[in-house]
Amino acid sequence: MGIPDEDIHPVATGAAAETVAKHQEPQDLVFYSGWFCPFVQRAWIVLEEKNIPYQYKEVNPYKKEKHFLEINPKGLVPAIEYGGRALYESLIICEFFDEQYPQHAPALYPRDPFARASVRLWLDHAAKLVVPGFHRILQAQGVDAQQRARDEYAAALRTIAEQAQGPYFLGAEFSIVDAAIAPWAVRDYILAEHRGYSRDAVGEKWKRWAEALETRESVVRTKSDREHYEPIYGRYLRDEAQSEAAKATREGRVIP
Amino acid sequence: MGIPDEDIHPVATGAAAETVAKHQEPQDLVFYSGWFCPFVQRAWIVLEEKNIPYQYKEVNPYKKEKHFLEINPKGLVPAIEYGGRALYESLIICEFFDEQYPQHAPALYPRDPFARASVRLWLDHAAKLVVPGFHRILQAQGVDAQQRARDEYAAALRTIAEQAQGPYFLGAEFSIVDAAIAPWAVRDYILAEHRGYSRDAVGEKWKRWAEALETRESVVRTKSDREHYEPIYGRYLRDEAQSEAAKATREGRVIP
Repeated sequence: MGIPDEDIHPVATGAAAETVAKHQEPQDLVFYSGWFCPFVQRAWIVLEEKNIPYQYKEVNPYKKEKHFLEINPKGLVPAIEYGGRALYESLIICEFFDEQYPQHAPALYPRDPFARASVRLWLDHAAKLVVPGFHRILQAQGVDAQQRARDEYAAALRTIAEQAQGPYFLGAEFSIVDAAIAPWAVRDYILAEHRGYSRDAVGEKWKRWAEALETRESVVRTKSDREHYEPIYGRYLRDEAQSEAAKATREGRVIP
Repeated sequence: MGIPDEDIHPVATGAAAETVAKHQEPQDLVFYSGWFCPFVQRAWIVLEEKNIPYQYKEVNPYKKEKHFLEINPKGLVPAIEYGGRALYESLIICEFFDEQYPQHAPALYPRDPFARASVRLWLDHAAKLVVPGFHRILQAQGVDAQQRARDEYAAALRTIAEQAQGPYFLGAEFSIVDAAIAPWAVRDYILAEHRGYSRDAVGEKWKRWAEALETRESVVRTKSDREHYEPIYGRYLRDEAQSEAAKATREGRVIP
């Protein structure tokens, strides 16, 4: 998500604060986080799903630690440090967790190569249509632009939700597709309150899937209180946000 | 790459035509191709590297077969049909080949999870900076825009080339990073002839790596004659191309 805006609440709250408190001890794996960031939440959900030992470190985007910038010069979160080396990019981190900790159930990718490829196509759909679609509707100014963005976002969600087996994307087991989409289900109340979006209007399958996602324990444990997300998204709704994602959306570029 | 422009030469030529001729027999795996497309070439390189049995089918972008559109409604190439189902997206197809045919050397991804994640970060660099950078310099009109695009493209190439172990990205063994970058090394003579680009100006490491890539047998075997690429790229150079990649670049959007 890149560099968020100033004056955000500095630390996780609510259920996420309890999770942070349980992950303060030094571990081989250090998780560099921004509590508010949906890309961070993807990786955090996977850590919690798989019960991987990790040390949580909140990155203050305006006072980044020297050590963090040394291992991760781009300064982006989520990032991890493992064996003195850094990784970033949410889905790359998630896949690393799945491969590095195979003894930690659940496995988030199917074993069959064709099924894995199919999952990757849906992750690609999320990256190209769902995530940018959310940002477009959030930042859209004016009734027409908002309507167009709402229709596009609904179409992107409907397309993927129609493939969900229920309750999760691949059926009974939570998978990487669920982890990749859940942070945007968690945050869609913002669109409902300010942009005329509703899960019902997207469709029954999305509604059921979104409810399954937002009530999954790993998702709940990585959620902060709504009141602290709101000032962040307020800046997006007024199209004043200065995060990398916000600027890219404004300029019609890909979210970095 | 999406839908290319009309009036392109209809079939592969040169070394690629010989490769096509060897892959006409029906096989479990059908490879839907456009001989001119760099994304197609990625997957084709992998098929040749791993000596996977496949049937080559050239897709005429203006007369797509009904069966092709049934299995792959977006109509994009590269696509494959395997067991009656389709896959598309070049890197997803490449990874499928690596996983579905593990007995076919070389393995294109490292085994160690951290090394795999690191490779994925470089593939992400290729997707976000190298490929769009090539299109931007190709389509840039005017001296200033071309200079800026040339500098950006050189920087993107230099960053990844500095990590190349030599002769290939990961050292002695050809890997997925090589397959992902090679088609743009093959085509950079267009930028040299029309946009003031030179491998020397990018740097010695890129020059050596690009030479290793373009002379790799699998890359040579999937190359057509230069004269037939030129009319295609002529339209890009005049910014008249109507492919999905061309339109996205013109509008500052992500290449689909």
